[in-house]
Amino acid sequence: MYDHFPISDRARELRSKLIAFMEENIFPNEKVFAEQHAAGDRWTHPPIMEELKVKAREAGLWNMFLPHSKEGYEGMGLSNVEYGMLCEQMGKSFIGSEPFNCSAPDTGNMETLFLYGDADQRAKWLRPLMDGEIRSCFSMTEPDVASSDATNIQTEIRRDGDDYVINGVKWWSSGAMDKACKIAIVMGKTDKTAEKHRQQSMILVPLDTPGVTIVRPLHVIGYDHAPHGHAEIRYDNVRVPASNILLGEGRGFEIAQGRLGPGRIHHCMRSIGQAERALQSMCERGLQRTAFGQPIAEMGVNKHWIAESRCEIEQARLLTMHAAYMMDTVGNKAARKEIAMIKVVGANMVQRVVDRAIQFHGAQGVSQDTFLAAAFANARTMRLVDGPDEVHRETIAKLELKQYRN
Amino acid sequence: MYDHFPISDRARELRSKLIAFMEENIFPNEKVFAEQHAAGDRWTHPPIMEELKVKAREAGLWNMFLPHSKEGYEGMGLSNVEYGMLCEQMGKSFIGSEPFNCSAPDTGNMETLFLYGDADQRAKWLRPLMDGEIRSCFSMTEPDVASSDATNIQTEIRRDGDDYVINGVKWWSSGAMDKACKIAIVMGKTDKTAEKHRQQSMILVPLDTPGVTIVRPLHVIGYDHAPHGHAEIRYDNVRVPASNILLGEGRGFEIAQGRLGPGRIHHCMRSIGQAERALQSMCERGLQRTAFGQPIAEMGVNKHWIAESRCEIEQARLLTMHAAYMMDTVGNKAARKEIAMIKVVGANMVQRVVDRAIQFHGAQGVSQDTFLAAAFANARTMRLVDGPDEVHRETIAKLELKQYRN
Amino acid sequence: MYDHFPISDRARELRSKLIAFMEENIFPNEKVFAEQHAAGDRWTHPPIMEELKVKAREAGLWNMFLPHSKEGYEGMGLSNVEYGMLCEQMGKSFIGSEPFNCSAPDTGNMETLFLYGDADQRAKWLRPLMDGEIRSCFSMTEPDVASSDATNIQTEIRRDGDDYVINGVKWWSSGAMDKACKIAIVMGKTDKTAEKHRQQSMILVPLDTPGVTIVRPLHVIGYDHAPHGHAEIRYDNVRVPASNILLGEGRGFEIAQGRLGPGRIHHCMRSIGQAERALQSMCERGLQRTAFGQPIAEMGVNKHWIAESRCEIEQARLLTMHAAYMMDTVGNKAARKEIAMIKVVGANMVQRVVDRAIQFHGAQGVSQDTFLAAAFANARTMRLVDGPDEVHRETIAKLELKQYRN
Amino acid sequence: MYDHFPISDRARELRSKLIAFMEENIFPNEKVFAEQHAAGDRWTHPPIMEELKVKAREAGLWNMFLPHSKEGYEGMGLSNVEYGMLCEQMGKSFIGSEPFNCSAPDTGNMETLFLYGDADQRAKWLRPLMDGEIRSCFSMTEPDVASSDATNIQTEIRRDGDDYVINGVKWWSSGAMDKACKIAIVMGKTDKTAEKHRQQSMILVPLDTPGVTIVRPLHVIGYDHAPHGHAEIRYDNVRVPASNILLGEGRGFEIAQGRLGPGRIHHCMRSIGQAERALQSMCERGLQRTAFGQPIAEMGVNKHWIAESRCEIEQARLLTMHAAYMMDTVGNKAARKEIAMIKVVGANMVQRVVDRAIQFHGAQGVSQDTFLAAAFANARTMRLVDGPDEVHRETIAKLELKQYRN
Repeated sequence: MYDHFPISDRARELRSKLIAFMEENIFPNEKVFAEQHAAGDRWTHPPIMEELKVKAREAGLWNMFLPHSKEGYEGMGLSNVEYGMLCEQMGKSFIGSEPFNCSAPDTGNMETLFLYGDADQRAKWLRPLMDGEIRSCFSMTEPDVASSDATNIQTEIRRDGDDYVINGVKWWSSGAMDKACKIAIVMGKTDKTAEKHRQQSMILVPLDTPGVTIVRPLHVIGYDHAPHGHAEIRYDNVRVPASNILLGEGRGFEIAQGRLGPGRIHHCMRSIGQAERALQSMCERGLQRTAFGQPIAEMGVNKHWIAESRCEIEQARLLTMHAAYMMDTVGNKAARKEIAMIKVVGANMVQRVVDRAIQFHGAQGVSQDTFLAAAFANARTMRLVDGPDEVHRETIAKLELKQYRN
Repeated sequence: MYDHFPISDRARELRSKLIAFMEENIFPNEKVFAEQHAAGDRWTHPPIMEELKVKAREAGLWNMFLPHSKEGYEGMGLSNVEYGMLCEQMGKSFIGSEPFNCSAPDTGNMETLFLYGDADQRAKWLRPLMDGEIRSCFSMTEPDVASSDATNIQTEIRRDGDDYVINGVKWWSSGAMDKACKIAIVMGKTDKTAEKHRQQSMILVPLDTPGVTIVRPLHVIGYDHAPHGHAEIRYDNVRVPASNILLGEGRGFEIAQGRLGPGRIHHCMRSIGQAERALQSMCERGLQRTAFGQPIAEMGVNKHWIAESRCEIEQARLLTMHAAYMMDTVGNKAARKEIAMIKVVGANMVQRVVDRAIQFHGAQGVSQDTFLAAAFANARTMRLVDGPDEVHRETIAKLELKQYRN
Repeated sequence: MYDHFPISDRARELRSKLIAFMEENIFPNEKVFAEQHAAGDRWTHPPIMEELKVKAREAGLWNMFLPHSKEGYEGMGLSNVEYGMLCEQMGKSFIGSEPFNCSAPDTGNMETLFLYGDADQRAKWLRPLMDGEIRSCFSMTEPDVASSDATNIQTEIRRDGDDYVINGVKWWSSGAMDKACKIAIVMGKTDKTAEKHRQQSMILVPLDTPGVTIVRPLHVIGYDHAPHGHAEIRYDNVRVPASNILLGEGRGFEIAQGRLGPGRIHHCMRSIGQAERALQSMCERGLQRTAFGQPIAEMGVNKHWIAESRCEIEQARLLTMHAAYMMDTVGNKAARKEIAMIKVVGANMVQRVVDRAIQFHGAQGVSQDTFLAAAFANARTMRLVDGPDEVHRETIAKLELKQYRN
Repeated sequence: MYDHFPISDRARELRSKLIAFMEENIFPNEKVFAEQHAAGDRWTHPPIMEELKVKAREAGLWNMFLPHSKEGYEGMGLSNVEYGMLCEQMGKSFIGSEPFNCSAPDTGNMETLFLYGDADQRAKWLRPLMDGEIRSCFSMTEPDVASSDATNIQTEIRRDGDDYVINGVKWWSSGAMDKACKIAIVMGKTDKTAEKHRQQSMILVPLDTPGVTIVRPLHVIGYDHAPHGHAEIRYDNVRVPASNILLGEGRGFEIAQGRLGPGRIHHCMRSIGQAERALQSMCERGLQRTAFGQPIAEMGVNKHWIAESRCEIEQARLLTMHAAYMMDTVGNKAARKEIAMIKVVGANMVQRVVDRAIQFHGAQGVSQDTFLAAAFANARTMRLVDGPDEVHRETIAKLELKQYRN
């Protein structure tokens, strides 16, 4: 189903290995993870995760996300098409990314540090991140403004001698609840009078800096996503050395743009993985469970839902892989419409497919006994993450209409 | 909007009073409830609830659900149309039913005891329930079978001398997690060899009876609905006096049928209340929040969603009120198709409306900061409670086709 | 299903009589009508129609639409609720309105003449219309402007001595292709400088006036709706006596507003009639036709579609009847939101239901062998007639938001 | 948008040439075609069509559909991917296939004759078909049975000495109304006692054979599709030489299977072409037309519909091209699920997109003044042609479930 895309033998091999690893190590340990987590600290990953990381690294399934290499920072060199294909597999489990050091937002943060960090910044933060020793967060969204319009951002990053001083409130800083999270990339304004897209900067803020307060974890439809978590963070006169700035003042918007494209491929392919798992559970449940003397798969509308789900998944996958292919061949900018499309299509598709899978499972489908309820909450959330559907549909329409203007 | 239905002046007055009570006492105390609950025991209602109960009872807004009266057990005498209208208002808040002693499943249990309980059973259980001193659960659904087909039930109620001995596992016994919950109405089979609809019986089981184990709370899309909760309960050789049986052996199915109709009206009207609140929040947020220089209500698809929501709510309300009217005038049996229709229509409608309201709120919409996330989880669950959509659509289609057979 | 609305015994009786008349005289003659029409002139009603008119008038089923009475112009005095109920029955057949002299646009035109015409205008045009001797058209929509915004109208009605001279192009003048159509009510501007809603006037234009050219029939999704037809009409220096103006200069908008509400009830209830007939055909076909050894009603998604159709029809009917009830009790203006809602809901509902019914019939469903193909084209068109869905959704949203402004 | 599929330079060149030809010769002549047709015989192609055929043949755009070559019968050798890509362009106009001798059902019939006809059959029928001198029909579907189950076919092909005698009634024999249609491939049963898939045969029946009666043209949602047309044909004791049988007795099912796959690619890609044209018209109209002071593209839900349409078209195209790619690489049988998916997805997609485009055009959208109304009728019909959606969804679900059985 990927064969018409350019995929190296090495990537194919990685995929096979990854699938085997998921079967042997990830799925069977979901329950272990949950039990250890329930028994331990809410905001610390349980021991099984460290075991899985060791195994995955030994298996050569580590940092697959990084497309480039620099001395000392070895990426895998996979294309967006190739890594996207792997994301589908990792996305099938909620504990399926971290073992491979391929979790959001670390992947985006690592790539940002790799591309825009200087040697010191890389040594201090990229190194331990790539080794899976610490985690990171990306602190951009703010509670009081429509963050889908990035120019609304209020947080201030003010130069003061050799330091910058940061003031503002952020939320949805995903991963920041995790006690292993040590560093935030914070977006804010260094110059409110500059040209619109030159006002923002990104700066590195260690989470133990005085003035940083983790206010509370935010929930998504009832889940707190512990131990990862989504934090509200207050920055009160947080002072960091001026050298912590990324790339320089006024470059924040530019950096933000660069990381969006790949991130959407990853999100969408993980969604497709979840949809595949949901469809599988629909089929299995449909064949096992009987009501009124028949397997429920044979009853009424159920085959219709299976067929619709298969049609929707295939289409979303082809669309996403094609967007990845365009990024690989003509670049993120030329692929803007494609990237906007997958954002809308992927999230809505997985919500519908998981919704149907829940229906096949009866009340069990909304309970903690299957992965479906969490996947449903997740899918619903994906329609808002990185901007609501409506913003992306607006982008698609604008690009479409542009061809016909004057 | 209700005026073409027969509604007494007294019911109208109750509605006005109830609306005022909600405004003054319920909505402003939602946050208080949440804070007290967070600070106290997870499975105990916080003090504010007792205060609200006292106030509501003083205001004459108590036990409105009970359509009949017997010496010592005074109901309000409201029709399904009239009480349904009140449910819409109470449904607007997740803490909006208990203050009035109108929570499920207590209302259904009280009506069951009122209609089918003998004088002793009433004195022992109906009295404290009507006084809001204890709560109750209904223990019917089982984990291992498709409970939408009630004949699948496995729990055994075996006569042994002057006792019955109960063995089985139940789940989704809503309310049973609450420490105030003292009594379960358990459905099980007294005679597996009897005619299909005469095998089941209902029996009263005090929750402190030896052999009753509350195994765990079940979650719905991440929520545990504490302090109410949905329990998995194991009944291991639970022994109760034979006098605890309701109405007699083999009458379980008959009792179950009777309580379904009104319960669906209540559920649907509460759903409509939630949809109304969601629509209101959509409009308010749409007017307050601006993005790209415009109130978001004026942008793109948003007015479309407001209009669609209004159209869907109005239709669902009229359908539900009409079903209530039919129950009042021609009886539950003749209204079977109508009752099946509202089950499907109400739950799906509220899921769609709340889904849109979330979208208007951005990431805040899935967080704990508005009522929307909980309403969304609830709405999704309503499509499974009392049988999945598919079962009710099947019923509607069968009744429709019946007219054309031979 | 109407019983909770105020309906007189006389209206109930009319309904029974009408249902019987449809069964005995209308449905069995649809084929006769089609054959006679195919054999005769395309733009003349075939003889069977005149026979049906005689019979219907004798049966007392004549001019039921007219709610009022004046000396010599006897209406039936039915409320919107009551007449709406009858429209559902008449709507079940494409030849089901004219026999009762209850066809659009004649009903609207007759009511306009009744309410706003002077004695001479009534004698000359209302009399023969009420006797079913001639037909009429309403000439408002124009090809070059978005007519959903009525202020866009370009047609000029210029006073010249004792005459008015009319210049403009109209289209979708329904009924104007019929050779029996003798009179047009034309909307145009008498004063382009007046206040926005006082620029338009309505004037009576006999179709045989020099300068009136019937340009061509317009089709709707392949149908020309002969012998009724939708005409494009050119008015070139058409001169009529000044006395032909309705109510006076600048009153056009006011008259137009008045006729919209009832017309929408009629349209929607006829749509509901068509949806009912489609659902009936779905059930009948579903039970008669077998494939792969089963009646198709029992297969796959088909019962799901039957149930969905029943749910949607019931809701649309209750919404429409409720809108009619509001018009009867609080007036058209207060019922504005309700009228906008039924416009959107009714048309979309019937399109979906008929779409499903076609699917049940296989290729026959799109052919001329059932009423479904014509009903489908009609349903699609209803989403545009009197303004597209989008305009009405806009109205609903505006009224909804209004409650929350300031 | 096709670049990741294997496409030869020659095919790319053909595409450019074809696009230019459409722009220069096809679109500008649609009106000419309609006028000439209205002025001439209903069931004869107007002169412009012959002119276009000459031009297209000279341009080397002729018989592109034929993937193979034999001495004297030169095909273009295009893969399914390559020819599918061309179908999209041809599908944009209702007169866009015949000029290139690429119309259904002739393409399927020619391929059948090429693959299964003997030298005489090819000389007599394939030669003039490939030269565009005559046309042909495929006579399979029958009025009285669910033809989606091919074993239901009733038509009898009885051996009688050196002849076969055919009796039966067929309908939806597309193209048979055209006076240029000279030959039918008729499917019927030669042996009702044989194994289920060996009962049917295909036989060549010249339409001027005594006993062949063209009963009537069938309409699709009001259109008779003249001069092409869909015929009901009666075969009464139609006698043809035994040599007219294709491949031999009992091979009918086998031949039928072979032609389905490519035909679906063609249909779907033509649908995508129509959807593209509809989307283009939506954008153009949206920018040109103003209402309430704004271009309608900027109003309300309209950009949402543009974005949704683009997302749906892209997905359907990728799915179809991928199905074609699978047919090219692993064969029709292995691509069964993919072929079933595009059948469902393509037809439903184009119906939705065209539906929206109509809405953008107001009442003009349902009239004869744009291509949209005809495209809408066509799209609706595509959901039934070659079996209704439901049958194909059933196939998809069966193949999906198969992976999980035992």
